[in-house]
Amino acid sequence: MSEKFVIGVDFGTLSGRATVVRVSDGLELGSSVMEYRHGVMDRTLTAGDDQQLPPDFALQVPADYLEVLRAVVREAVADAKIDAQDVIGIGTDFTSASTLPTDSLGTPLCEREEFKNNPHAYVKMWKHHGGTEQAERAIAIAEARGEMWLGRYGGRLSSEIVLPKALETLEKAPDVYEAMDFYVEAVDWIVWQLCGRLVHSAAPAGYKALRQNDQYPSEEYFAELNPKFRTFIADKFDAPVMQLGERAGALTEEMAEALGLPSGIAVAVGQIDAHVTAPAAQAVEPGQMTAIMGTSNVYIVNGRTARDIPGVFGITNGGISAGLWGYEGGQTGVGDIFAWIVDNIVPGEYQNEANRRGISVHELLTEKAGKQEVGEHGLIALDWHNGNRSILNNANLSGTLLGMTLNTTPEDIYRAYLEATGFGLRVIIENFLEHGVEINEIVAAGGLLKNKVLMQMYADITRIPLSISGSKLAGSLGAAIYGAVAAGAYPDVYAAAKNMGSKIEHAYVPNEDNAQKYDLLYEEYVTLHDYFGRGANDVMARLKEFQRRVHDKKNS
Amino acid sequence: MSEKFVIGVDFGTLSGRATVVRVSDGLELGSSVMEYRHGVMDRTLTAGDDQQLPPDFALQVPADYLEVLRAVVREAVADAKIDAQDVIGIGTDFTSASTLPTDSLGTPLCEREEFKNNPHAYVKMWKHHGGTEQAERAIAIAEARGEMWLGRYGGRLSSEIVLPKALETLEKAPDVYEAMDFYVEAVDWIVWQLCGRLVHSAAPAGYKALRQNDQYPSEEYFAELNPKFRTFIADKFDAPVMQLGERAGALTEEMAEALGLPSGIAVAVGQIDAHVTAPAAQAVEPGQMTAIMGTSNVYIVNGRTARDIPGVFGITNGGISAGLWGYEGGQTGVGDIFAWIVDNIVPGEYQNEANRRGISVHELLTEKAGKQEVGEHGLIALDWHNGNRSILNNANLSGTLLGMTLNTTPEDIYRAYLEATGFGLRVIIENFLEHGVEINEIVAAGGLLKNKVLMQMYADITRIPLSISGSKLAGSLGAAIYGAVAAGAYPDVYAAAKNMGSKIEHAYVPNEDNAQKYDLLYEEYVTLHDYFGRGANDVMARLKEFQRRVHDKKNS
Repeated sequence: MSEKFVIGVDFGTLSGRATVVRVSDGLELGSSVMEYRHGVMDRTLTAGDDQQLPPDFALQVPADYLEVLRAVVREAVADAKIDAQDVIGIGTDFTSASTLPTDSLGTPLCEREEFKNNPHAYVKMWKHHGGTEQAERAIAIAEARGEMWLGRYGGRLSSEIVLPKALETLEKAPDVYEAMDFYVEAVDWIVWQLCGRLVHSAAPAGYKALRQNDQYPSEEYFAELNPKFRTFIADKFDAPVMQLGERAGALTEEMAEALGLPSGIAVAVGQIDAHVTAPAAQAVEPGQMTAIMGTSNVYIVNGRTARDIPGVFGITNGGISAGLWGYEGGQTGVGDIFAWIVDNIVPGEYQNEANRRGISVHELLTEKAGKQEVGEHGLIALDWHNGNRSILNNANLSGTLLGMTLNTTPEDIYRAYLEATGFGLRVIIENFLEHGVEINEIVAAGGLLKNKVLMQMYADITRIPLSISGSKLAGSLGAAIYGAVAAGAYPDVYAAAKNMGSKIEHAYVPNEDNAQKYDLLYEEYVTLHDYFGRGANDVMARLKEFQRRVHDKKNS
Repeated sequence: MSEKFVIGVDFGTLSGRATVVRVSDGLELGSSVMEYRHGVMDRTLTAGDDQQLPPDFALQVPADYLEVLRAVVREAVADAKIDAQDVIGIGTDFTSASTLPTDSLGTPLCEREEFKNNPHAYVKMWKHHGGTEQAERAIAIAEARGEMWLGRYGGRLSSEIVLPKALETLEKAPDVYEAMDFYVEAVDWIVWQLCGRLVHSAAPAGYKALRQNDQYPSEEYFAELNPKFRTFIADKFDAPVMQLGERAGALTEEMAEALGLPSGIAVAVGQIDAHVTAPAAQAVEPGQMTAIMGTSNVYIVNGRTARDIPGVFGITNGGISAGLWGYEGGQTGVGDIFAWIVDNIVPGEYQNEANRRGISVHELLTEKAGKQEVGEHGLIALDWHNGNRSILNNANLSGTLLGMTLNTTPEDIYRAYLEATGFGLRVIIENFLEHGVEINEIVAAGGLLKNKVLMQMYADITRIPLSISGSKLAGSLGAAIYGAVAAGAYPDVYAAAKNMGSKIEHAYVPNEDNAQKYDLLYEEYVTLHDYFGRGANDVMARLKEFQRRVHDKKNS
């Protein structure tokens, strides 16, 4: 019997990647990646009238996802040199919550001429924070009503989840809200495009759409947010919920032709991009924290019991694997911050040196920064350029850098931010430990793995050994694993992960000497973290509010 | 009778400038500027063995000053197209306290082979902070002894003044200390070179060497700092003190030949670089604050009575003009910080755009930043890259930037630091006002005048009209005014200033709308200023201490 293959497609923040994976052992045979044509629209609406966007907006164009999908699947199959007829399933994962309004057939409203220039008709990316005020209101009302489910989200609701984004659309663009038949997560929308059927994946429904114990929040709750929002779930959101590893449907004729795959093959229920990594890296046991490190970092870990933990982003029964409670935390800006540094605050001479040596500016800065002793630069940074997800869950926080002198260099700043993300990680881990969630191994995956200085730093700062995913494409490999289960090649995700996943155990071991030095800096980090993050000085929120007022006035 | 001329030589942080000035009306006929060959040595001892320097060091090479002196005086005379025989006097001013050890003839010890590689044998520039620990000790002992003179320095002693620099030399380089016959301020050393006679100018003696009521601190005080320091004044420092406008001596034959000037002409007592500006800009009345704005900003203002004011850098009877008390405050990093931004955190594309348009990166950033509304960037900065002189007087403070997001641009950061220096200025002014020193006009001079956006910002932030020096070369013009008085062309500095100085009154008037918006940001600035600067969180000092330990260990 010939070998069978599955395709995993991983939709990230800037690009999508397809990988062809052998079902029997997880071997990655071919892969292809492509950037979205419009990238992230966070300054101007480049797909529309180029209008200036508010500073907390981050939008994408859904057609870009399909363009990437069509290109990368075909290229991955060509790269793998397999017969497309041997592909038995396709699995997908997506950044989340990334949400868009569609008509009843799934056509995005931004594709209608009347809404082309309306930012709210586009995909609001996970890092779109336009609904911050709505999120604050959603918390206040949930607290006032004593909603039990709030504890599952650490007592806070991020502006990144579905509800604030939908409510922002209702209140800022009522015509878009009125016109939409569905407000859908991109993770479910892409599956809808593949198999012609809208289903909700259980994981994003739990983590991002407030579904707990098989229910969404009540209509009374939605009505208190805004009377017109009362029937949001029934009118715009409801769809069958399916479990991870289930088969959402069969690949349609039309999509099969577009992708060059056999029609009728299994299309798996979609998964949040972070969560596919746990099976891919064989990190589904309690105590194993999967760290997906890229533009932002996501941390997921299985716990044996449900506990309400402050600042945890979400707790979902079976959200990672059956029988355990999936906890999710994360840092909203990691690689994004490093990229911001490279794009905005690195002088031309560094760019020239990197070009001359044929390395990236990231590599150059890491090389220079890696030669420093702990504490040598004299800086402390707060890694909040994109707000703070865990454990403060506050999008109004912002990035800070303290300790600069006239001798401070770009590599000093770069290193300070590498460290800051490590300190942010340690805050999250200590919060888990304090609340009884065991963590004794970090299993890392994602684009930041290639930065070995950073990985060693994370092990030193946390004093926890760091294993790394055996696959450099853990995202698309994980998606493919779900595809294999959906196709019936394995009885469950656990069995598939065992055969198809891989990791390199304890690739980075903590250095105690460095760890002790980092303790000193960590103490300073925590003091600043608490001062700016826990109400002693809400200067960051006030500055953002001032900024919003100036922006509104300028655009009025 | 033919016109007579004087030459003013202004020794700044990076360069020296000579200007030929007509005695009758202050007309500037010719000028020349030249950078010091070794610039500022703050990373490595480039004039010696290239050894790495501690992070708080800032050294210069005295021979560089003479090289510049010889070049710029000749070039200024040539540029002025005058007959050198009509020059009747020369005046000088210098950054202060910039100190160096010499032998009995004034030869700097760094010119001896045995001390060539010893950093302590070079000029410790005003912004050299290696004596921070010594300064702290000097305060503690002065407080314990109840030294009355401490109040004249705001109850604090900066590591920038003479005493900590000398004590640092005694304790860190005892061989240099032992070998020196004089520890002299560069302002007095250059006059010594010109006329062959060491005298102390009254202004630096008062502001920088703790001379009050015609006395230096007692030997008992010096002995408590270090037993070997007891006779520092008598052994290494004492010299006749002369008043501003007096004639220190006659230009020597040798120097006259080197400069191409007549020998025997008047050499004026030297002045602190900032203070020459007050007569040059006709700002010697109470209420007129002279602001000398460049790499750092210095503020001087005459008051009618002596008051001890916290954080004021120095109070000296007749330090600016006879019969009034001269108050001095300042900001240790202003243009230096803007230059740091341009050198370290501006990407190549900005550099390219500036090159293409034939403007400086400063001009480009100012242009972009100037288009913003107040509050648009969402940032608050603390302008402490070089510590804080007034009103906190603490070299252990450091620069901070808060409010960054992934959308923050280089011009946002640049503008935030422009504003931060304005907020720092406002803190100083409010401190003067609270303690009864009148301020109703800012008279600005110096290199930053050319940044009109910054000047308007200062007027808006402080709500005080800002006049500007009529001369773009107020430093060297002011030095020349002292030269004219020393030559006997005017009876006193006041009369000379009236004829030779100039200003453009109220060139910038506060915009009340902007002022109100800046009030909001200023409130945030003050909160952070007090939190980090007044003991609530001494993280900056701890980071610097950690940095020093790492540095010491690395070099041991």
